[in-house]
Amino acid sequence: MTQTSSAAVPLQHAPPPTDVAELLAAMSLEEKLAQIVGFWDKGDGEAVAPLQGAFVEAQGLYDVAAQGLGHLTRVYGTRPVDPVERARWLWDFQRWLVGSTQHGIPALVHEECLTGLSAWRAATYPTPLAWGASFDPDLVGEVAGLVGETMRQLGVHQGLAPVLDVVRDPRWGRVEEAISEDPYLVATIGTAYVEGLQEQGVHATLKHFVGYSASQAGRNFAPVHAGPRELEDVLMVPFEMALVEGGARSVMHSYTEVDGVPVAADADLLTGVLRERWGFAGTVVADYFGVAFLHVLHRVAADLGEAAGQALLAGVDIELPTGDAYLAPLAAAVRSGAVDEALVDRACTRALEQKAELGLLGATFEDEPPTQVDLDGPRHRAAARRLAQESVVLLANDGTLPLTDPSRIAVIGPNADRLEALFGCYSFINHVIAQHPEVDAGIVAPTVHEALAAEWPGAVLQHVRGCEVDSEDASDIEEAVAAARGAEVAVVVVGDSSGLFGRATSGEGCDRDDLELPGVQRQLVEAVLATGTPVVLVLLTGRPYAVDWALEACSAVVQAFFPGEEGAGAIAGVVSGRVNPSGHLPVSLPRSAGSQPYTYLHPPLGGDSDVTNLSSRPALPFGHGLSYTTFEVGDLEVRAGSTAEAVEAQVRVTNTGERAGDDVIQLYARDLVASVTRPVAQLVGYARVTLDPGQSRVLTFSVPPTRLSFTGRDRRRVVEPGEFEIWAGDSVADRNMVRTITLEGGVHEVGLHEPRRTAVAISIHG
Amino acid sequence: MTQTSSAAVPLQHAPPPTDVAELLAAMSLEEKLAQIVGFWDKGDGEAVAPLQGAFVEAQGLYDVAAQGLGHLTRVYGTRPVDPVERARWLWDFQRWLVGSTQHGIPALVHEECLTGLSAWRAATYPTPLAWGASFDPDLVGEVAGLVGETMRQLGVHQGLAPVLDVVRDPRWGRVEEAISEDPYLVATIGTAYVEGLQEQGVHATLKHFVGYSASQAGRNFAPVHAGPRELEDVLMVPFEMALVEGGARSVMHSYTEVDGVPVAADADLLTGVLRERWGFAGTVVADYFGVAFLHVLHRVAADLGEAAGQALLAGVDIELPTGDAYLAPLAAAVRSGAVDEALVDRACTRALEQKAELGLLGATFEDEPPTQVDLDGPRHRAAARRLAQESVVLLANDGTLPLTDPSRIAVIGPNADRLEALFGCYSFINHVIAQHPEVDAGIVAPTVHEALAAEWPGAVLQHVRGCEVDSEDASDIEEAVAAARGAEVAVVVVGDSSGLFGRATSGEGCDRDDLELPGVQRQLVEAVLATGTPVVLVLLTGRPYAVDWALEACSAVVQAFFPGEEGAGAIAGVVSGRVNPSGHLPVSLPRSAGSQPYTYLHPPLGGDSDVTNLSSRPALPFGHGLSYTTFEVGDLEVRAGSTAEAVEAQVRVTNTGERAGDDVIQLYARDLVASVTRPVAQLVGYARVTLDPGQSRVLTFSVPPTRLSFTGRDRRRVVEPGEFEIWAGDSVADRNMVRTITLEGGVHEVGLHEPRRTAVAISIHG
Repeated sequence: MTQTSSAAVPLQHAPPPTDVAELLAAMSLEEKLAQIVGFWDKGDGEAVAPLQGAFVEAQGLYDVAAQGLGHLTRVYGTRPVDPVERARWLWDFQRWLVGSTQHGIPALVHEECLTGLSAWRAATYPTPLAWGASFDPDLVGEVAGLVGETMRQLGVHQGLAPVLDVVRDPRWGRVEEAISEDPYLVATIGTAYVEGLQEQGVHATLKHFVGYSASQAGRNFAPVHAGPRELEDVLMVPFEMALVEGGARSVMHSYTEVDGVPVAADADLLTGVLRERWGFAGTVVADYFGVAFLHVLHRVAADLGEAAGQALLAGVDIELPTGDAYLAPLAAAVRSGAVDEALVDRACTRALEQKAELGLLGATFEDEPPTQVDLDGPRHRAAARRLAQESVVLLANDGTLPLTDPSRIAVIGPNADRLEALFGCYSFINHVIAQHPEVDAGIVAPTVHEALAAEWPGAVLQHVRGCEVDSEDASDIEEAVAAARGAEVAVVVVGDSSGLFGRATSGEGCDRDDLELPGVQRQLVEAVLATGTPVVLVLLTGRPYAVDWALEACSAVVQAFFPGEEGAGAIAGVVSGRVNPSGHLPVSLPRSAGSQPYTYLHPPLGGDSDVTNLSSRPALPFGHGLSYTTFEVGDLEVRAGSTAEAVEAQVRVTNTGERAGDDVIQLYARDLVASVTRPVAQLVGYARVTLDPGQSRVLTFSVPPTRLSFTGRDRRRVVEPGEFEIWAGDSVADRNMVRTITLEGGVHEVGLHEPRRTAVAISIHG
Repeated sequence: MTQTSSAAVPLQHAPPPTDVAELLAAMSLEEKLAQIVGFWDKGDGEAVAPLQGAFVEAQGLYDVAAQGLGHLTRVYGTRPVDPVERARWLWDFQRWLVGSTQHGIPALVHEECLTGLSAWRAATYPTPLAWGASFDPDLVGEVAGLVGETMRQLGVHQGLAPVLDVVRDPRWGRVEEAISEDPYLVATIGTAYVEGLQEQGVHATLKHFVGYSASQAGRNFAPVHAGPRELEDVLMVPFEMALVEGGARSVMHSYTEVDGVPVAADADLLTGVLRERWGFAGTVVADYFGVAFLHVLHRVAADLGEAAGQALLAGVDIELPTGDAYLAPLAAAVRSGAVDEALVDRACTRALEQKAELGLLGATFEDEPPTQVDLDGPRHRAAARRLAQESVVLLANDGTLPLTDPSRIAVIGPNADRLEALFGCYSFINHVIAQHPEVDAGIVAPTVHEALAAEWPGAVLQHVRGCEVDSEDASDIEEAVAAARGAEVAVVVVGDSSGLFGRATSGEGCDRDDLELPGVQRQLVEAVLATGTPVVLVLLTGRPYAVDWALEACSAVVQAFFPGEEGAGAIAGVVSGRVNPSGHLPVSLPRSAGSQPYTYLHPPLGGDSDVTNLSSRPALPFGHGLSYTTFEVGDLEVRAGSTAEAVEAQVRVTNTGERAGDDVIQLYARDLVASVTRPVAQLVGYARVTLDPGQSRVLTFSVPPTRLSFTGRDRRRVVEPGEFEIWAGDSVADRNMVRTITLEGGVHEVGLHEPRRTAVAISIHG
C-alpha cells in the first residue's frame, strides 16, 4: 500500500486526473492524509501563533510533501520577504509538486488577509471593527475585491478571513478583528467581504465557528457559557448568512469549548449545523493547532491520534497549520482501527473538490509567476482612504471641531507619531515586522502627527509623546503639559498597541482586565486637560474603552479604532473639517469592565431595571456618531402584513445643516411579547446616505421575516404574530419616532432560503 | 358553580374531609384557585420585595380568604410585631378558616428563615456564606433544627430556605445568601439544613431553581448564559442532593431566564427535571411576583392570565406572595378555555397533599397558641456562637495575631460599632427593622467594638468610624489616623452594609460593579497602614472582595462574612486567641471585577494559560484558611477499582503546633481526560477535625462514583474510565500530595439512587 516518491527524481506521468473520486481511489492512506494537512515553514522560529513551540516539524517541506500536500501555510505572511520573489519560489514549488509527486496535485495556498493580504509591502486597510463603524458593506466588499485580486495574482487560493465573531465582551483582545456587537451588521458586512473576495476566485474562510467571542470574562480561549438559543440567534447568524447567501467556501472552527464540548470535536455544530442544516459543501479547516489542542489544552483526547479522530469525526477536514495530528498519529489510529478510513476519505474528498473548484487539479503552473504586482497602488490607497474616512466616529464635540486655521498645535500621546498605532494585530507590520526590526515597515504612510502637519502647512506643531501606551512611567507627562500650555489646542492621540500574546494591549492573546485606557494614558489626558487648553482626544484602539470621563471633559473625542494606512489622513481630515465624520459606533461604549459582559441586544432584564441598583447603560449607545452637519430623520411610516411577509418601513432624512455629509440611518425593531425573551432593540436595517445641504432622501426598507425571527421553544426558527415596535434614528437610543405594528396570521417558520438581508431603496422624491 | 361564604356567619358543618381527591372534587374553581395562592398583608406599605408596588391588593385578607387560602405569607417577617402576640392572631385566623370557610382548610404559613426565622427578637445566625466557611454540615443542620423548632412552635409550616444557588460571580448582591462556589459544598451543607429543618416538621424550600446566581455580569435578574451541561453538572447539583437525599418538600423557581426561557415558564426544568427525572412530589412555589414577572418583566406573556397559564403549565403550583395572576386572571383564562382546568387541579392536588402531610387537613387549632416561646435563648446562642466561631476565616497573619494583652487599641471603621454589620439582607434587622427606626433592633448583641472591649477589660480602646461604608466622604479619615498613631494596634473593621434594592452594598438588588471595598474604606485602611501601627483588618462582607492589596500590607486579615448575633464575640475571640480560627474560604478571593465571572472549577482553559496575557488566578484559593496551630497532612493513600465503585482515600492529619485547633481537610479530584472538558479541580470530600497538640487522626474518605460523574456528550450522567488525580490539603491550591489513580471498567452510568455524599471515617489509629 505504501507509495514512495523521491524529491530528487521527477516522476514521468500523464497529466493528473481531475476526477476526485478517481483520484481518491488511486491514493494511499499517506497520500490522502497529506491532502488534508498544511505545512508551515516557520523559518527562524519567531512566535506567530500560540503554543507553536509545542509542535516542531521533524521534517522539511520537501520531505513532508513527498506524498503531496494539502495546504501551504502562510507563504507570504510568515517573514518579511518580497512578495514577487516569494511568488517565484511558490511557482517552483507548485511545479515540483505537479512534476515530482505521485498524483501531481498542487498545494492550496492560504494566507491571512484580515486587513489586506498579510504580506510585506501590501496594502493594509482598516481593521474589521472599523468596517463595522462604516456601516458600508459595499465598500468593504470593494476592499475585499482588491485584496482578492492581489492574492490571486500571487497564487494564494484561500484567505483566512473574515472574522464573523459577534462582539460579546470588550475585554477580549480580538475584538479589533470582529465587526460589531450586532449580528446583523456582522453578517451583512462579513458577507460583503466574502462576496468581494470570492469574486476574485479566492476562497473566504469564516472565522471562528462558533462562540469564540463569548469566552468567559473576555479571556482568550476561555470556556463559552452559552445555550443553544444564544448560539443560534446571535452567534451563528453571521455564519449562516455568509454561507447560505454569501456562498463562503470554507469555515474555520473556534478554539473554544461551548458548554463543555470543544467546537473542534463537536459534530452537532461542524456537521449537523454547517452541512446538514445549511447545506455547506466546502471545507472546514482547523484553527492553527486546534486539533492538537483537543489533547494538550482541552484534555478531551488522550493523545494526538485520539484528537485527530475526534476532529475528523466532528467534521474538521483540514488540519492547519501543519499535520501534527493528521499525519503520523492519525495514520496509526486508522491502521489500529480506532478511526474509520472512510472519515479520511470524506475529508480528502472535500479537500480535492475544493482544489478542483479552484482549478488546481490538472494545473501545471507553466505560466510565469507575476514579476510586478500592484500591492499598494492608487486603487488600494483610494479604497483604504474611503474606508478610513467612513469609519472615524466623532463621539463628542463641543464645537471645537473642525479646527479652523490653528497656528500652534500640541500633538501629544504615545499613538500620535507611531506608524504601528494605525494597524491591528493581523496586519503584517504588527504580526511579523514587530519581530524584524532589521527591515523597513513595508508601508509608507503618515502618522497622525505627520498627517496633521500636512493638513496645516503653516501651523507650528509641537509633538510630545507624554507616555508609552502600556507603561506606568508618568515622568514625561510634564513635558506634554508644557507643550499643551503653549498651544491653542492639544490633539492627544492615545489608545492601544496591537500585537500578539501579551506583547501588546490589543490583539490575539492581549485581553484586558479593566477597560481604562492602558498605562497612564488617562493620567496624561487629564494632566493636559488641567492646563485649560482645549483637548481633541483621538482614540486609536482595538476595542471600545470606558472613556465616559472624557466625553464632557474633552472638547472633542474622535474614535478611530485601527484605521489602516490611510487612517492618519482620515483622522487629520476629520480634525480639520476636510472630512465630515460619518462613522457610527459598531459597539456600545462601555462604562466599566465591571458591567461586562453586556450587549445592547439584551432582553428587558439585561439592562437597567428596578431589581438591581446598578445601571447597565453604556456610556454611548450602539450606532452613535456625530457629524459636522445636522440631519433630520422624520416621516417614519411602517406597513406590516402577515408574519410571512416583509415589513415595509419608509423614512425621510434631510440634511438640515450647512455642509454635505453622510448619515447612517438605522432601523430597529422590538418584538413586544414572544414565547421566549427577546431583545429590547435589534438592528433590522441600515443605510448610509450622502446628502448635500438642504437635500432630502426617502429610504424604503423591506425587512424580511428572517430579521424578526428567533428560535422558539421547540427550536424552530419562527416569526410570531403580534405587536412589534419599529423605530429609525441615528443610534439605538434615538427613539423619537417609534411605530407599533401588528403582524397578523399564524406562527411563520422561516425557511433556509428566505432572504436575510433588508432591502433598502433610496429615492429623492417621496 | 360559584360558592359563596360569609366571614360573618360561621358555617356549621362536619369536620372537613382529609382525603385530597374527595376534597378536590367538592371544590369550585375559585376554591381551588384560593388553595394555590398566598396572601400577604403588607401592612403600612414598606418595600420588602421588588416591584411589589405594581401589585396592590384590592381586597383585605378576610375577603380574599372567603374561598379558603393556600398560603399565609410572612406572618412574622413583615413588620416588627411581638411573635407571641402575632401567634395569637394567627391561631384566631386559622380557626376562622376552619370554621367559616366552605371546606375548613387552614392556611399553610410560610416565612423567610435564611439566617434564623425572620421575626422580631428571634435568634439570628450567620449568613449562608459563613456556613460554607465552616465546612460543617452537622452544625448547620443543628442550627436548622433550632430554627425549625421555633417555626413549628409559632405555627409556621414552611421556610423559604435554603438558598442552593452556586456562587458564580461575586458581583451579585445575593452571594451572601449562597453557601459556596463549590456545588458539592453547597449540596452537603444545604441538604443538612433541609434535614435539620424538616426533622422539626417544617418544610424546606430550595431556592432558586435554577440558574439565578449565574446572571450576566452579576446583575440581579439578568439573563443567564448557560448551556444544559453547566446547568446539570454545576447549578443543579445541590438541588438534586437536597431533593433526592434530603427529601426537601418544596422548591422555589428562579426569577431568571436561562438561554431565553424564564424558569417560571419552563416545563423542561420544573416538570421534566424536578418531577419526571428526580421524582419530586412536593410543591413548586413562585418566587415573589415571579408569575406576574413573566408578563411585566420578561415579556413572554401578553397579560397576567397568560402568565398564569404558562407558569401553571410549566409546573409552578403556588403563586406567592399573593394571587395576582392565579386568582382573577387565571379564573378568566380557565373559563375562556385558554387554560385547562386540569392544570389547576394538578397544582391544587399538590397543595392539598402538602397540607395533608403537614397535618393541616382536619386540623382545628383548638389548642392554644404559645404564650412563651424561646426565640433566642441559650441553646440558640450557643449554636450561633459555634457556627460563628467556625466560620471566621483568618486570611493572612504575620504573627501579630493572636494579640497578647494589648493596652491601647484603636478600633476603626464603619463596621466596628454597628450592630447591623453582623447580619445579612434576610435578617429581620436589615430586612424590616431598617424601615422601622421607631422600634428596638430585636437583638441584644455586642458590636465588634464592644466584644473587643469585653475581651480585654483592662485595655484602652479608642473607637473612630473613619468613614461610612458607602460614602465618598473621606473627611473623618484623619481622626482615624490620629487614633491609630496613639495605639499599639489598630483593628479596622470594614466591609458591607446589607439590605434591599439599592439601599445597601450587599443583599438582594445590591450588586457591585467593582470588587473594591465600597466607598473610601480602602483609603481609610491605607491611611491607617501609613501610620506604621500594625493593622488587623476585619472584613464583615457579603461577598469576597478584591483585597489582595491588604494581604501583605496588613498584619492580619480576618474574613468574617456576616457572622450573626454571636459574631462579634467570635471575631474578638479570634483576635485575642481565645478562639483558634478554623474557617476556610467557601469562595475564591478575587483579584478584580474584570476577571469575573470566574470559578475555581474551570477547565484547563478557564484559568491561567499561554493563550492569554491575563492571569485568572484568584488572590487566595478556594478552601484557604489559617490557624494558630499548624497541621501536617500526610500519608495520602488512594485505592480505586472500577468506575462503578467508590474511590477510597486515606490521609493522616497531625496537629504539629502548640495548641488545639480544627483543621478542614479537603479532598480534590481531577479527571485527566474525559469526553467533555472537566474542571482542573473539584472538591469531592471534606472533613472538619479537632486535634489537640501532637494529636493525629486518620481520615478515610469513600468517594462515590456520583462525585466523579458528569454529563457526557449524549447527556447521560457517567463516570468514564481512565486516570484521575486525587489530592488532599488545606486548600485547592495545596497540591503537595497528588496521587494518580486509574478507574477500570467501562463507562458507568450513575443511577438516581446511588449515594452522592462522600462518607468520611475518622480514627485515631491507623
